[in-house]
Amino acid sequence: MADNLQPTNEKDIISLTPIGQVVNAFDEPTSMDILREAESEVIIKPEYIEGLQGIQAGDAIMVLFHFHQSRSYALTQHPRGDESRPKRGVFTLCSPHRPNYLGLTIVSVVSINGGRIKVHGLDAINGSPVIDIKPANRIRSVNHGS
Amino acid sequence: MADNLQPTNEKDIISLTPIGQVVNAFDEPTSMDILREAESEVIIKPEYIEGLQGIQAGDAIMVLFHFHQSRSYALTQHPRGDESRPKRGVFTLCSPHRPNYLGLTIVSVVSINGGRIKVHGLDAINGSPVIDIKPANRIRSVNHGS
Repeated sequence: MADNLQPTNEKDIISLTPIGQVVNAFDEPTSMDILREAESEVIIKPEYIEGLQGIQAGDAIMVLFHFHQSRSYALTQHPRGDESRPKRGVFTLCSPHRPNYLGLTIVSVVSINGGRIKVHGLDAINGSPVIDIKPANRIRSVNHGS
Repeated sequence: MADNLQPTNEKDIISLTPIGQVVNAFDEPTSMDILREAESEVIIKPEYIEGLQGIQAGDAIMVLFHFHQSRSYALTQHPRGDESRPKRGVFTLCSPHRPNYLGLTIVSVVSINGGRIKVHGLDAINGSPVIDIKPANRIRSVNHGS
């Protein structure tokens, strides 16, 4: 069916404009386990705050963000960089060293005040651009540990 | 804490290069309910196929894609366009009319053959650029219905 593919060209480049930014205590790449125990703030730009209507403390939300410190990727990697484990395809991993450098975490909302959302469990470091927020209330368990 | 925000400028624009494309029978915007009953193929570009190592039939994967036919968004919307339901913030909805126009679905892998992944449940239309694939095996239930 590959001949059904639509033509690709430069127009295929997709440009994203961050809607906000992550603020927490971690300026450098940090273990996922540590990040997920911490609280972070997601600060949404004023022009997007209206889009948060309906989000409240206790909600589960998906935060899509940019791994802004990643500069390269590998298509196969040891899970969590652990060389005792065999390499796997990057699309089976949560590694930040991935094509397009986008990360996604399901977090719980601790509080929300205007465009400032305090969350628990976000594995993004300080300054990570936030790309989107999506509802996750019906997702009961998150993929950790790869 | 807003004064902790890092400066933003044009460098904040993030460029994505699709890793593949969705192929299915739906060329025009189609109800999520219909799409999620259908099978689709996710065709990965040859240069990214190695990154699929370890994905097998029966796996649950998250497919991140571009709503390439969306041209505008609104920050509050009626859920599923149903005017009998009050408007809510777009970040509580799965609407394709959202900032950055990115969609995410958790799907099950029906089969995989090289760079061709047959999946069930993808709510993307034909030709949607695929941006990333992430593991979702430990996610037991997906947000539908908003």
